[in-house]
Formats: sequence, C-alpha cells, structure tokens
Amino acid sequence: MNIATKAKPHDRLATYLSEDMTAVGALIRERMASEHAPRIPEVTAHLVEAGGKRLRPMLTLAAARMCGYDGPYHVHLAATVEFIHTATLLHDDVVDESAQRRGRPTANLLWDNQSSVLVGDYLFARSFQLMTEPGSMRVMRILSNAAATIAEGEVLQLTAAQNLATDESVYLQVVRGKTAALFSAATGVGGVIADAPEDHVRALFDYGDALGVAFQIVDDLLDYRGQSDATGKNVGDDFRERKLTLPVIKAVAKADAEERAFWVRTIEKGRQEEGDLDTALGLLHRHDALMETEREARNWAEKARSALAPLPDHPVREMLSDLAEYVVSRIG
Amino acid sequence: MNIATKAKPHDRLATYLSEDMTAVGALIRERMASEHAPRIPEVTAHLVEAGGKRLRPMLTLAAARMCGYDGPYHVHLAATVEFIHTATLLHDDVVDESAQRRGRPTANLLWDNQSSVLVGDYLFARSFQLMTEPGSMRVMRILSNAAATIAEGEVLQLTAAQNLATDESVYLQVVRGKTAALFSAATGVGGVIADAPEDHVRALFDYGDALGVAFQIVDDLLDYRGQSDATGKNVGDDFRERKLTLPVIKAVAKADAEERAFWVRTIEKGRQEEGDLDTALGLLHRHDALMETEREARNWAEKARSALAPLPDHPVREMLSDLAEYVVSRIG
Repeated sequence: MNIATKAKPHDRLATYLSEDMTAVGALIRERMASEHAPRIPEVTAHLVEAGGKRLRPMLTLAAARMCGYDGPYHVHLAATVEFIHTATLLHDDVVDESAQRRGRPTANLLWDNQSSVLVGDYLFARSFQLMTEPGSMRVMRILSNAAATIAEGEVLQLTAAQNLATDESVYLQVVRGKTAALFSAATGVGGVIADAPEDHVRALFDYGDALGVAFQIVDDLLDYRGQSDATGKNVGDDFRERKLTLPVIKAVAKADAEERAFWVRTIEKGRQEEGDLDTALGLLHRHDALMETEREARNWAEKARSALAPLPDHPVREMLSDLAEYVVSRIG
Repeated sequence: MNIATKAKPHDRLATYLSEDMTAVGALIRERMASEHAPRIPEVTAHLVEAGGKRLRPMLTLAAARMCGYDGPYHVHLAATVEFIHTATLLHDDVVDESAQRRGRPTANLLWDNQSSVLVGDYLFARSFQLMTEPGSMRVMRILSNAAATIAEGEVLQLTAAQNLATDESVYLQVVRGKTAALFSAATGVGGVIADAPEDHVRALFDYGDALGVAFQIVDDLLDYRGQSDATGKNVGDDFRERKLTLPVIKAVAKADAEERAFWVRTIEKGRQEEGDLDTALGLLHRHDALMETEREARNWAEKARSALAPLPDHPVREMLSDLAEYVVSRIG
C-alpha cells in the first residue's frame, strides 16, 4: 500500500487538474442560474456547495487530458456529468425520503419535495443543453444513454430492493445503472471529445464501469462496517431502509430456514424490532458476507486498474490507477 | 363559427395525419419499453394509453408535413415531444399531489411517488435519446431549451402560485414555461426538420407559442366555469389548490380591502372554509374577471391564427387555423 505515504490520488488529480476544475466550477455556477426562478439556484447551491468530491467531472477532465485534448469542451462535458449527478441526488432524496446528504439537511427537508423534483428536472434539462454545445453526436448519445440507464437502474432498485429473490446479477444491474453508468460515460466522453483511438475509448469506458461498480460495492459494504465518517451515512441505514445490498444478498443465499424468516420479516415485510440490526450484523459475519463483499470490491478495483493498460503512459494514468486502489482502501 | 358544422379540427388533423400518428404510437410503445425494469412500461402505459389527445406530437407532424418534409424523423421528434409531455405530467402529479388525471387515478396514487419521479426521469432521458437520432444540432438545442424552460416555469409557479403579488406578467411567464414552450418547440422542430425557410420556422414558433398560451388560459378559465367534462378536473380545483391563475389575478387587481383580505386568507394562507368557492366565484363575476380572461384567450387564439400568414397555402394550415379557434371554443 504505497499510496498511504503519498497525497490521496483524488487530491493529486484535483491538483493536476485544478485550472480545469476551476473552469468547471465557474460553468456550473453560471448554468445553474435561472433568470425567472430564484428557487432554482438556491436549491442547487445548497447541494453543489456542500462540498461533494466532484469525482465524476474530474474523471471526464482526466480522461480528456490523458488523451491529449486541448480544446474547451471537456469543461462542458464535466459540468454536464455533475449536473446529471446533482439532479439524480435531488430525486434520490425524494425517493428515499432522506433527511441528510453530505452531512447537511436534504433539499426536500429544507424546502419541499416539489422543489427537489422540479429543480432536478431543471438540472437534467440544463445538462442536455450543455451536452449539445460541443456538437458531437456521439457524446450526446453516450450521455443520453447514461441518463436512461441511471433512471432504469433506480426503478429496478425500487422494485428489487425489498424482494429476497434479488440475486447478485440483479444487484449488479442496479449498481451498473445507478452508479457505474455515469462513471463510464464520464470517462468515455473524455476520450471521445479528445478523438482518442477506439481502443483507448473502450479502455476508458471499462475503467469507469469497473471503478463505478467498485465504488458502489464499497459504499454498500461501509454501510454495515461502521465507519459512518467515510460515507456520511449511519451504520445500518440500508438495513433500516430495507435495501437488499450485496452483503445481505450473500447472507440470504446461505441462510437456513430460521435465518431466512428473519430476512423476510425485516427486509421484505419491514417489521423491524430493537436488536435486529445486531442480529443482521451477526448473520453477515457468520456467513463471511462482509469479507466476500470486500473481496468483490477489490476484484472490481483490480479490473479498473487493468482496464487502463492500453492507454498511453501519462501521469494521469498513474493517478487513475491509484484512484481505483484508493476507492477500496476506504474499506480500511 | 363555421367550425361547429365540420368535424373538430383536432379530429381532422388526426385523420389527415393518421399514418404518421400510427407510426408515432408504435415508436412510443417501442421506446417506453425497458429490458430490466418492467415497472417503467406499466406506469407509462397507464398514462399514455389513457387516451390523451396527443395534441403536441400532432403539431410536430402537422408542421413538418405542411413544410413538405418527407423523411422519417418527424415521427421521432413527435415521440420526443410526447415523452417530454408525459414525463412532466408524471412529475406534476407528484408536485400537485393529484389523485386524478385524464379521468383515471394518477400513477402516484396507483403505484407511488417514487415510481412517478423515476419513471418520469426515464422518459426524459428517453426523449433525449430520441431527439439525437435525426442528427440535427438545432433540433436538439430547441428541445433541450424547451425542457429547461418547462422546468423553470414549474418552479416559478411553485413560488408564485400562493403569492398575491403575482401579476399578469409573472402569470404569462409561468404559462409560457409550463405550456407554451413545448407547443412552440413542437411546431418549430417540425419546420426545422423540413428545412423550411427561416420566416416559416419563425411563424411556426409564434403559432405554437400563442396556441399554447391560449390553451392554458382556457384551461385556467374552465376551472372556474364549471365544465368539468372539458378539462377532466373539478370546478374550483385551482382555488382549492391555492393556484393563483389569471381569473383570480384579475379579481385581486380590482379588490377592495375586504376582498383582498378574503384572497389573502384563502389563497395565501390557505385557510379555506365552506362556501369560500362560491364567494370567490361571486368576486370573479363582480369584477368581470372571467369575461376578461375569456377575451385574453380569444386574443391569443387570434394571434396564433395570424401567425400562420407567412406559411404556404396547405390543407394543414387551414386545420391549424381552425384548431386555434377550436381551443377557445371549448369555453362554450
């Protein structure tokens, strides 16, 4: 683990791309404005300025720079990606009835669900305006496909989350939709806008996809691992919200009749009692579900690293490789 | 009123464009499918098959045909427009907490708010995928601008609706956003895809804009006029939902101190009592608010008709002209 001795890869990327990131920030502020409806920038600023990591726009900038792009449009695409992400967060918080995001009260709590739904719609529309500006049909197809895949993943999650029949392949589909689709579109369009050779573009997609899957699995693992600092969530949130994530899917697969009855009651029927979270954690340990989940996250991170192989030798390539390692190092 | 003796202009257009409309219906069914999330087509079909008038896609087809288009892409654009419209309906019903739409229970009631939000997002994304297919940058800019203007209008309505300071110019901005933006984009892209001369495209935009404004004013008028059949809403819904629409704005502008106190209590504070709707209707009549609202609707319809002047002589042009007259003839 050499990365412990260096600055975090995320911070190294941010430093390397700092001029570009400043331009992205300025463009985001410019485009989140609304001449007629001041509520829009209020709600957006609350979320945008809460200091998210801006990982996704950074991926677009990194990919474009690594592929030698020197035009202005990687900034538009990075802002597009961040707008899509912000819109989905606003809508997610309505769907999940969340009260906290990035350590602050959610917009649906501070304003109302209506504002979150409509401002999210506005940001979606803004993202589509932005993505037309570089004039690349392929870029628009990639990003509009990603937006459809995200929504599809979210709907699938809605119907699959409380259903014990949900297996690892459905889980992977949900994760690919809700998280990996935007990661891979973010890296992919960076290569496309730079007019990179096809095998480089493919490599960037594969990297983004595997990084996104690793990222989400780690998130779902940390929910049971007890490091609420790393996620901004409380331990067991997914359990209380009856979300069937990978650790539980693995434990359900090995459950005996009595254990199965426990999962049916707590997840499917949602009749949770005092002490159930501890019982759930006990079952996850008994069946090595957390260890196996961790192993999968590491496999996906490794996939992300090896996807970078076809790409040219470049300082950014090393940072992206470290980033994949770093994502799973959050597991601790 | 010669149109009373003929088939309704909407039906004549539908007959004239029946092949195209069939193609639009087939494309909508194809694209509302989802490989992974069956909830999506279920929710969409509930709304799409409730037999909306499909006025917006018809406008796109009509404009394209009138301008001599004979390619395949007017069908994609018409489906795009209907997807955007359907997505906004799904989200509107969540925002308004509506229970009925097109005479049937709303999706948020039959399923849940979550499904309505996420399926709406999916249809937005689908609409953006569709609009890229003709490969026209200008078409994409028009439609993505329209989507942003719609969301902006909805947010503006959210903040302006219960505020008695809302005047006719703010009302017009809301109406332009929530209704006219999509009407004018629908007619405009029909001309653009047909490569029509610039003054024809301009005329189509102006027609769609004025038609949309007339359409919405009539809707807001009928809400107080007592013909619930024509709108599928109950008389006084807007009053009960505390929506400051044109009739009330006109009555508030002429209110004395006591009347003003009534509007503050019922609309701004929302403390409504038995008999308040009758009082409100009395005030609307006393100040000729409904008559003046009707006059404005007729003016906008007339603007729509005259906007058609630069366009070539064509059977569709006559139908569009009659359609503008028909929209206000719903007033009765």
